[in-house]
Order: sequence, then structure tokens, then C-alpha cells
Amino acid sequence: MNISILGAATTKFGELWSVSPRELARTVFSEALTASNLKPQEIDALFVGNMLSGILGNQANLGSLFAEELGVYVPAFRLEGACASGGLALHSGINSIRAGQYKVVMVLGIEKMTDHTQDEITHALMAAGSDEERASGVTFPGLYALIARAYMQEYKVGEEDIASVSVKNHYHGSLNPKAQFQAPITVEEVMKSGKIADPLRLLDCSPISDGASAIIITGDEKVKKRHSKPIQIIASEVATDSLSLCDRKSFTSLLSVVKAGDAAYKKTGLKPEDIDVAELHDCFSIAEVIATEDLGFSRRGEGASDIADGKHTLNTGKIITNSSGGLKACGHPVGATGVKQIVEIVEQLRHEAGIRQVPKARIGLCHNVGGSGTIAVIHILQK
Amino acid sequence: MNISILGAATTKFGELWSVSPRELARTVFSEALTASNLKPQEIDALFVGNMLSGILGNQANLGSLFAEELGVYVPAFRLEGACASGGLALHSGINSIRAGQYKVVMVLGIEKMTDHTQDEITHALMAAGSDEERASGVTFPGLYALIARAYMQEYKVGEEDIASVSVKNHYHGSLNPKAQFQAPITVEEVMKSGKIADPLRLLDCSPISDGASAIIITGDEKVKKRHSKPIQIIASEVATDSLSLCDRKSFTSLLSVVKAGDAAYKKTGLKPEDIDVAELHDCFSIAEVIATEDLGFSRRGEGASDIADGKHTLNTGKIITNSSGGLKACGHPVGATGVKQIVEIVEQLRHEAGIRQVPKARIGLCHNVGGSGTIAVIHILQK
Repeated sequence: MNISILGAATTKFGELWSVSPRELARTVFSEALTASNLKPQEIDALFVGNMLSGILGNQANLGSLFAEELGVYVPAFRLEGACASGGLALHSGINSIRAGQYKVVMVLGIEKMTDHTQDEITHALMAAGSDEERASGVTFPGLYALIARAYMQEYKVGEEDIASVSVKNHYHGSLNPKAQFQAPITVEEVMKSGKIADPLRLLDCSPISDGASAIIITGDEKVKKRHSKPIQIIASEVATDSLSLCDRKSFTSLLSVVKAGDAAYKKTGLKPEDIDVAELHDCFSIAEVIATEDLGFSRRGEGASDIADGKHTLNTGKIITNSSGGLKACGHPVGATGVKQIVEIVEQLRHEAGIRQVPKARIGLCHNVGGSGTIAVIHILQK
Repeated sequence: MNISILGAATTKFGELWSVSPRELARTVFSEALTASNLKPQEIDALFVGNMLSGILGNQANLGSLFAEELGVYVPAFRLEGACASGGLALHSGINSIRAGQYKVVMVLGIEKMTDHTQDEITHALMAAGSDEERASGVTFPGLYALIARAYMQEYKVGEEDIASVSVKNHYHGSLNPKAQFQAPITVEEVMKSGKIADPLRLLDCSPISDGASAIIITGDEKVKKRHSKPIQIIASEVATDSLSLCDRKSFTSLLSVVKAGDAAYKKTGLKPEDIDVAELHDCFSIAEVIATEDLGFSRRGEGASDIADGKHTLNTGKIITNSSGGLKACGHPVGATGVKQIVEIVEQLRHEAGIRQVPKARIGLCHNVGGSGTIAVIHILQK
């Protein structure tokens, strides 16, 4: 059974203090339903990706909570796998349709983070790590700083090259009205920004954000006709690795991404060079450099210089990465990110991305990661 | 595709202060694998049901965490739907097999609660409710007390009749070496126990518990032969209702249970009287009374008196409910409960339940509920 995406919607990402989670959900539900020409009663199940609502706000049971906002009490599920929660929700929704259990499924990614203090968020995000990591006092910027340090040493790559990830993504973000940050930045500005965890600086790090994204998927050929441009999901693959970074053989490649990526390429018969546009999980600049290599878009050790050379930038590149601005510029409401990536690729493949449109985009990839590479979800979409 | 259960294992439920969550998982993984004659490498994916680990212990990302304990880094998912998390994990595992995505799946239900204070637990469990309910100061015993009061008024049923649920379940628990409480109790003892939330007394309430349960499922006919007594899952249905109790039309029936139960009966062509043995979600005694009626085992208003009359008790009854001791006597580690119910029914259908064996048990049902009836999961199993 071929699964297609009909309506796809996202809120603006950012500091949405005046908007409740319920309202965020209602907004994207309504837009996704309207775009699909579907009524709420035609949705058979809801899959919610969220990481932090229980930890930060003592609100669990989110499947049921958001089913209420859909206005129909359908079977509802909350998937959690740290920052990969959105991708996992989509993967589970797809399986439930292929299983013949549900016909039309809404997938929601949502997170509300900026109502809390930085210390609370830093603490809560460490829930994605291991006991040993928390006991050591390391934070997520610290974990990715260790990865960056190892990478720089192994491949003799400088901080400026890695900084070019943020420059590219802020440039793309400047073209995206839904992005949290819409101002372009320079390598010099990244290099001048304060150190968060050496060698990572403030402008190497994705921000703390609020936001929600939703898509409607179906395998039913009749329902697919409700949208003029359904987009096919041709691969949905998940893989895991150790929870603790220290248990890995290598810091400069994420095994979970390689495994899920290889499985997705194998399932579709595609090669990295067949991808036109990709949303990569750039929680930190170094994460995108390594993703670029793990997914075969660049050779080992050349990810950063390829990005610096404009090989993945709109208008100058061949495989365009993070046309939305990525986690860095578009924002990173953790449970929403995996679904927002899909929304961006859907817009690109429909050629509805406006001034950030990747010309002739036909095949897109989404790369959603949880923890320090503990879990990876890869989706490949086709026009 | 017919899905069958191979190995099924549960730890003893109770105050397991000296055992870590990782060790609980390892124990049930190992027992379920051995019983299935399978190696860890033959497991394709892991589905984890857990509600409170993030809220109470700031540990999220449990799919990946427990995949590590399985010893193989397989795709891994955490499902959360309050106290229905275990049932939702199984439902999702089933769908992933039917989808053709995975062949052999481990489902784990796990919760560690007793390391925390009662106040912390009471607060954390309210994460299953709504903002409005939390703001009102109501607790879960309080919500079910409202249900009990409405039921008693509507059907002119006394507290003693409702207390017979606890008496039956403690009797069954006294026959179960895995139960948290193995001492029989009398109606008089229930009535003498302190009021928790009028009219519910201490012995009307399920306890706070630690525990883990795991099952291995597959749709592959060759793999099924690895176990001498595979048990078929012939229905897996989920339904939801409002998050807030106050938004319901009726307090004396749970719409989520009626909907999921009806769907399961319809899918199998079975009637309530075809069920030989059922595990019901008796978080409070009144919950089992209403479940007995919502699932058609008793007529409206007669659930409590039927239980008092021994109609659901081992040796005297026809449809035996909570042969494990239920949540009341076996214990209620919330994320584990939905999977433990399956383990109990599997043992019953294999006629391996020892002194609590229901004679000639052939068809069993599991009823797992989250929140105040917000979400319900029904599974029907057949020998």
C-alpha cells in the first residue's frame, strides 16, 4: 500500500507565549483538514509526537488531549523518543494504515518550551540522555561539543567551516515566514558569539522554541483524490544506537543514522545523489555536518567544506539541505521538529515553497534524530 | 495476518526498591526470549509502554534505553497514554507487524513508582487528567469517587457490594505468586479501612507498585512454531473520550470502553458470554463494576451484585475476572499493567496458571484504561 500525505501545516515557530498547546494543535488541525478537503469525522486516528509536556508541565495523556481538539474522539497515541518523537509518530501512523487498522491518520508534532526557564529546559532535555551522562553534569551542548571536538581532530576541520552550517540555515530561514529567526548571519558573527560548550558557540546551537506541525496521511486511493497534489512516502525507517555517547565506537558518525538511511535507500532503490532536498536534524551545526556525511551527501571529512562551498545552499547547490532554515533558524520545538521537516519537504515537492523553492524538487528526505544520535528516523518523500 | 504471542513474562509486582528499571527489563526480556526459543538478534523492534519515567525520574527516550538492555539496537518506540500505555504499546506493535515493517516484536510494559513519595506520585498521576481537573485540586481517587457516588445513586447500590470487587481480587491475588498483595480480605475489612475519597476507602484503591512485563509477538508462521503454545490476538481496539470527567454525558459508563469493546466484539464475531476469562482495569473497585457492565458481562446496575454473588470468581463464576488479582491485588505499576494483563491471559489460555487456573479457558479479554476512562484498549486472545 502506498501512503500519501494530503494536508500539511505548521505554525510559525518561536516564542509563542500567548498561545496554548491546545490552540496550537487546533490551528494546524484546521489548516491540514481544509487543505485535504476532509472533515474531522473522516480522521480515524491521531498520532502525537511530544517529548516534554509531562516533564515540564505535568501533562501526559496527550493523544487523548489533542483528539479532543480535533473534535472527534478517535484512537490516539503519543509517541516519545526525545527529539525524534515527531518522526516516530509519523512512522507509527504509517504502520497503522498499512496494517489496515486505520484509513486516514492525523500526525501532530507539538512542543511548548519557552514558558520555562533555561535551567528547567536544560535539565528536561537531559531526559534524552543516560543516568551516567546526567551524573557527569554534561548537557546536550556539551555532548555535541565532544562530537565536534572529535570531528575537528579526526578530519582537521576548523570552527569556521562548521559555522557555515548556521550561515546557510539562517540564509534559508530568512526566506521562510514560519522561521523563528529570519535574519541572515555571517561566519564572523557565529565566531564572535559566546561559547556555550567549547567549541560550540551560541550561533552553533538551535534555539528553544514553541510550535506545532501536522500532516494527514492515507493509503486510500479515493481519499488521496481529495488533495490535488498528494505526496508519496516511499520510505520510513527507524534505527537506534546506545543511549550514552561514551558507549559508541565512533563520535564522528551516528550509527543510527547510517542504519536508518541505508535501510531507506535500500527500500527505495535510491542513491544519495537522487535526493533533491533534505531536512536535516541540525540541533547543533556539527550535527548537520555529520548528517551530510552519514547520508552520503558529502564524503567523510568534507561535509563542512561542502557546506561552506555552497554545495547544499539554495541556488548554488545540488542537494539542498534545510531549506526551511533547519532547527537552527526555523526553530526546534522538539516534538514538532520531525513533523515540521515533513511539512517543509511536502511544500518543496509541491513547488509551493515560494522564494525558498528548490527548482525541480522531486525527491526529498527527512532526518530526525533523538538524543545524541540514540535514535534516528528517516523518511523519503516523492512527488 | 494472524498475530500470535510467544513468550510472556512478568516480574513480581510490588515495592522493588533494590531493582533498577534496566534490571526489571532485562529479567522479563530474558524470560520471554527463553520461553520463545528466540535470540535477542531475532527481535526486530521494541515497543515500550511507560507513563511516569520522565515526570518522576527525568528519564525519557525509553525505547532506546531498553533496546540497549535487549542487547541489540533495534527500532524502538515509547507509547504513552497514561495507565493505558502498556495496551497502546501492544496495539502499536501489532500494527507494525501487520504493516510488514517488523517480523518479531518485543512489547515491554514497565513502571517504577515506589521510590517516590506519595505526594509526588499523586501529583504525577494527575498528569493523566486535564488542566481544569488539576486546578480544582481533585486527585484520581477523587475522580473515581465521583464516578462511584453517581453509580451508587443511579442504581441504588451500596458500598458493601462495590467492596466485593476488592474481596474477589484479593482472593485471586492470594493464588498468584507474582501479586503484590497475596492476603485475602473480607468485605468487613474493606469497610473498616480508612476513607481515601468518599465513598472510596483504602481497600477500594489499587496500590502504587513497581514492575515490568514483556511479551513477544509475531505474524510469521515459521517463528510461531518456536513456541509450543502460541496464543492468537484476535482483536486489538482503541477508543478515546474526553480528558475531563466533567465533559462526559454519563459517569456510570465509560464511552471509550464501550466503543473499543464493541469494536473488538464486532471484529471477532464474539459475544460477551463467549469470554472465559478477563483482566479488567480495576484501578478502583468501582472501575471494575462499570467495566463488567460496559463489556456486557453483567447487566446495567448489576455488576456489583454479580461480583458479590461470585459470578466472576474462580470456581463459582462463569466469566472469571481478574484471575491475576487485578490492579487491586496484583499491583498497578501503571505502564506495566496493560502488558501484565496479557501475560495473565496467556497463562490462563495455555492452562499454565497453576492453582488459579480457570478451567477450560479458551478465550480471554484484556481491558486497559487510561485517565478517568479517557482512553481504553481492548485485546481479545484465543487459544
